[in-house]
Amino acid sequence: MTILIKDCAAITMSTPLVRRGVSIAIAEGRITKISSDSNLFVSERFDKVMDGKNKLALPGFVNAHTHLPMVLLRGYADDQNLQRWLAEEIWPAEKKLTEEDVYWASLVGIAEMLRSGTTTFSDMYFFMDAVAQAVKESGMRALLAYGVIAPQPGAKADQELKITEDFLKRWHGQANGRIRVAAASHAPYTCCDEVWRCAKSLAIQYNTLIHTHLQETRTEVDSSLKAFGRTPTERLEALGVFEAPTLAAHGVHLRDSDLEILKRQDVRLAHCPTSNLKLGSGIATVSKWRQAQLKVGIGTDGAASNNNLDMLEETRLAALLAKTNDPTALPASEALEMATLGGARALDFNDVGLLEEGRRADIALFDMQGVHWVPGFNPVSDLIYAAASADVETVIVNGQILMEQREIKSFDEEKAKARVHQLRAKYQKENSKN
Amino acid sequence: MTILIKDCAAITMSTPLVRRGVSIAIAEGRITKISSDSNLFVSERFDKVMDGKNKLALPGFVNAHTHLPMVLLRGYADDQNLQRWLAEEIWPAEKKLTEEDVYWASLVGIAEMLRSGTTTFSDMYFFMDAVAQAVKESGMRALLAYGVIAPQPGAKADQELKITEDFLKRWHGQANGRIRVAAASHAPYTCCDEVWRCAKSLAIQYNTLIHTHLQETRTEVDSSLKAFGRTPTERLEALGVFEAPTLAAHGVHLRDSDLEILKRQDVRLAHCPTSNLKLGSGIATVSKWRQAQLKVGIGTDGAASNNNLDMLEETRLAALLAKTNDPTALPASEALEMATLGGARALDFNDVGLLEEGRRADIALFDMQGVHWVPGFNPVSDLIYAAASADVETVIVNGQILMEQREIKSFDEEKAKARVHQLRAKYQKENSKN
Repeated sequence: MTILIKDCAAITMSTPLVRRGVSIAIAEGRITKISSDSNLFVSERFDKVMDGKNKLALPGFVNAHTHLPMVLLRGYADDQNLQRWLAEEIWPAEKKLTEEDVYWASLVGIAEMLRSGTTTFSDMYFFMDAVAQAVKESGMRALLAYGVIAPQPGAKADQELKITEDFLKRWHGQANGRIRVAAASHAPYTCCDEVWRCAKSLAIQYNTLIHTHLQETRTEVDSSLKAFGRTPTERLEALGVFEAPTLAAHGVHLRDSDLEILKRQDVRLAHCPTSNLKLGSGIATVSKWRQAQLKVGIGTDGAASNNNLDMLEETRLAALLAKTNDPTALPASEALEMATLGGARALDFNDVGLLEEGRRADIALFDMQGVHWVPGFNPVSDLIYAAASADVETVIVNGQILMEQREIKSFDEEKAKARVHQLRAKYQKENSKN
Repeated sequence: MTILIKDCAAITMSTPLVRRGVSIAIAEGRITKISSDSNLFVSERFDKVMDGKNKLALPGFVNAHTHLPMVLLRGYADDQNLQRWLAEEIWPAEKKLTEEDVYWASLVGIAEMLRSGTTTFSDMYFFMDAVAQAVKESGMRALLAYGVIAPQPGAKADQELKITEDFLKRWHGQANGRIRVAAASHAPYTCCDEVWRCAKSLAIQYNTLIHTHLQETRTEVDSSLKAFGRTPTERLEALGVFEAPTLAAHGVHLRDSDLEILKRQDVRLAHCPTSNLKLGSGIATVSKWRQAQLKVGIGTDGAASNNNLDMLEETRLAALLAKTNDPTALPASEALEMATLGGARALDFNDVGLLEEGRRADIALFDMQGVHWVPGFNPVSDLIYAAASADVETVIVNGQILMEQREIKSFDEEKAKARVHQLRAKYQKENSKN
């Protein structure tokens, strides 16, 4: 399919950052031309021509860390202590999960992400074949990982690693390369050394990343120091885990010495500010991560601890939180870089995250006619500090239009919503107040 | 006009908090009946009947602190040190303001607030007649105040106080009581003792509040200690200012001893978390305010330091920030209380902020069909943590429909937007990059 977006504004994440009155031509999944000379496009025929007037094109958001099927548990339990929340609410509910539930919840989550301008995401959960199937059908781009939990070596650990390798074999590179698979050890505290070594070997063997949680809470760091005499970061380095490219989520309680390791080992970080606040984990020192020139993306985490998958909200929060004591920290353009190009680099999707000729055509088109875009001094500021994700009008991934005029084109969103609505009864607690 | 909202869900801010399948009858500006017995309404005739299926009614948000006309400077200057931002960006731009500019900007700001479910706001700015005119025409409810700035006694101070009293005389209680006027001393550091005493006298004479900024920054507290040997709160108490009911915005740097004074004097606080982060002022200790049982509202502050007037975003941020180290702090229902009933009490609008028979009919009706409301375990959680302000479909103030199906009914929004768009050129900096 060939597409022309005519005469729009664009935030390119390249040079110049902001362009006005440009047209963007798309063919075979890639951006073939960006130019303000509209005569260039007169002789060409396009399958689809979109009017870009009052529209702002930007590279689609990259959600660097989520647990997509947890939309099923959105609002299921909130405002609780983390351990209670996990042990008494989330884990018991997750025991009821089936592959089919995960499939429908994944489609709902993908609809939610498309509606808020996300074109790529990084996921870690169970029943990942169902997630991959939803990604394949929907046209999204994703780095998917089965979340290995194996505190002890043995049969259980072997089984978890086998699931990982089978998933790698089935899905890595599928859907025209839109799906990549990572090896995921859920967290240092949930995986034994042997599992970590095997995960690293798998990642290297399949030329992919490791995806994990890292130093999300103070408790995690303290426990690691007690058990291993090392922070989780120090332990993973000692195990040689970082010989594989690694994407680590949260990092709220990283020490400066940990950051030095992560920098040396080119470990990528996914900043999840909403979830970190909501679960009481704290505020990550993102300005330090940026100063260390780490590859940093932004993630929503799962909808049970956020409670939405809105990357614009997440990016705004990242920009604001970084300023708590310094209003010059993380300017709007840098926050947007994390949400787009930074995330793409963190996930090793190296030809997305910016609007340049030759790059993958992953584009979110915002309508700037809403009242909160008035008067319009600066589109980067207006996007990051004022806009709403409901302003996203059209979303293109890999050159395919997945949402147009706020209608999801690639799958039956209403059917997926209805199915997940129906599932509520299955998961509803008996003592629920509402 | 009589209205019936048929068969909706409602968050009442009363008991019970959440009701499902209720109908809400409205006449003469007030809620006349809320009942789940639809037979009650069969014999009545209404001018307007709205289908409440999949809708959630709640008391409209109360924006407890803003500077409405600053929508004109949205995105004008960001990510800067506060003093530089004020002295080199905002104040020079504000010198160009005219009464007409303020009028159109106020209408744009009101449209933005209605679109995000706000029905009452508290404002402090210049050219307040223009703001009041916009409030009158639009049908909004507001507490308005001219922001006196007078560091020295003398002719200038007298003039500022005269503007305040003239504004009180002209507008206090106007528009069927929708407009109330407060006496505003801009801040302790911008007003001398004499002005504070006069402002208090005016507030008492006209049976209204004082609206001020208070201890927004550490610098303000340090300077006050140096100049007066007292914190700003201690100084205002010593001056007897709190003999008038007082609404104080920000309060980021309140000491425990200040909080004791505010509690003793029944001073109300407006929490402005976005602006406090964006300007690098810090995070207010709202949980302590709540423990002290102060009347607390939530405010967006002006759009130049936020950069929108979205109370749902603001409430979500308040709920999240309070949890930085304690996930049980400020549960969703308490954050919502601050954004509605708490704000109404802080502003002395004592018959709004909750859905009860006999109260003013100030209602925001949310559409719950968006994907981020799936699966729908808990409407309070879904509203505070997952919903979008674009879900607000219909807004009623004082029994009048001001927005219906996302169309502003009471004034010409597009005309106001166009006028403020045109004003951009007047305020645009010569060296602007965009």
